[in-house]
Amino acid sequence: MKVEFVNPFLSATLRVLKTMASVEASPGKPFLKKEGGAHGDVSGIIGITGPVNGSMSLSFSRNCILKIMAGMLGEEMEQEAEITKDVKDAVGELTNMISGDARNELGQQGYLFQIALPTVITGLNHEIQHKCKAPTIAIPFDTDAGPFVVEVCFEN
Amino acid sequence: MKVEFVNPFLSATLRVLKTMASVEASPGKPFLKKEGGAHGDVSGIIGITGPVNGSMSLSFSRNCILKIMAGMLGEEMEQEAEITKDVKDAVGELTNMISGDARNELGQQGYLFQIALPTVITGLNHEIQHKCKAPTIAIPFDTDAGPFVVEVCFEN
Repeated sequence: MKVEFVNPFLSATLRVLKTMASVEASPGKPFLKKEGGAHGDVSGIIGITGPVNGSMSLSFSRNCILKIMAGMLGEEMEQEAEITKDVKDAVGELTNMISGDARNELGQQGYLFQIALPTVITGLNHEIQHKCKAPTIAIPFDTDAGPFVVEVCFEN
Repeated sequence: MKVEFVNPFLSATLRVLKTMASVEASPGKPFLKKEGGAHGDVSGIIGITGPVNGSMSLSFSRNCILKIMAGMLGEEMEQEAEITKDVKDAVGELTNMISGDARNELGQQGYLFQIALPTVITGLNHEIQHKCKAPTIAIPFDTDAGPFVVEVCFEN
């Protein structure tokens, strides 16, 4: 997988969270993983096709996504709030926006990708694995409400 | 969503399970869903791009996928078997094969789609929602080891 495919997802995540939710996220160092997957309470997944095929996921803990939702809505969420339909819709929308923003940046570099429709996964501590011979790249982020992770996988 | 986009996924599922796992599945009547998502213990998801963008998922209970695995390997699985890496790999492979087979059938009808990389979700009773303005089509299947569901969503 080309290293230049990773940075657009990192910068798209920062831009979208700041613009849409006024959330400042700090990226950690991206790392390769061959086994295991991201764990989260709610995740968004989207497929990518083009010069190489791939997939991207965002996985949030409940607390982290509720904080991001609060930023998107401009109002505090209850600490005990459930992962409602609105939260799932927001995760789908963030998945669309981050992958779309990264796609645009890759397009400017001459790599023309298409983006599929997002799916949203709920279920406490579910695990997501990208199925690909190449390693998955995990980009960890930290926020005031805790960490979340973006994973990107391209077939080569 | 065009009705003719559904049948290729139904027939691909039957063909792939029969060929790969000697499992005879009986399809139920496909139905539209606007709310809620498929629940399962292990699911495969794949993105689809082309004339319209979409996504497909397969969701299995633990018992059902272990029975299918037994058919793929030609040997019985322990009843108490965990959802191991091999099971996740098999779900990723089934997701690839079913979507690829449906893609070929759609291609013969003049609809040229691309298929992204699969992701595999584990976590007891997780829920998958396809995020799309159009309704998701659910195709229920029954097998000797219990039911599973295929969901397909296209943006229009």
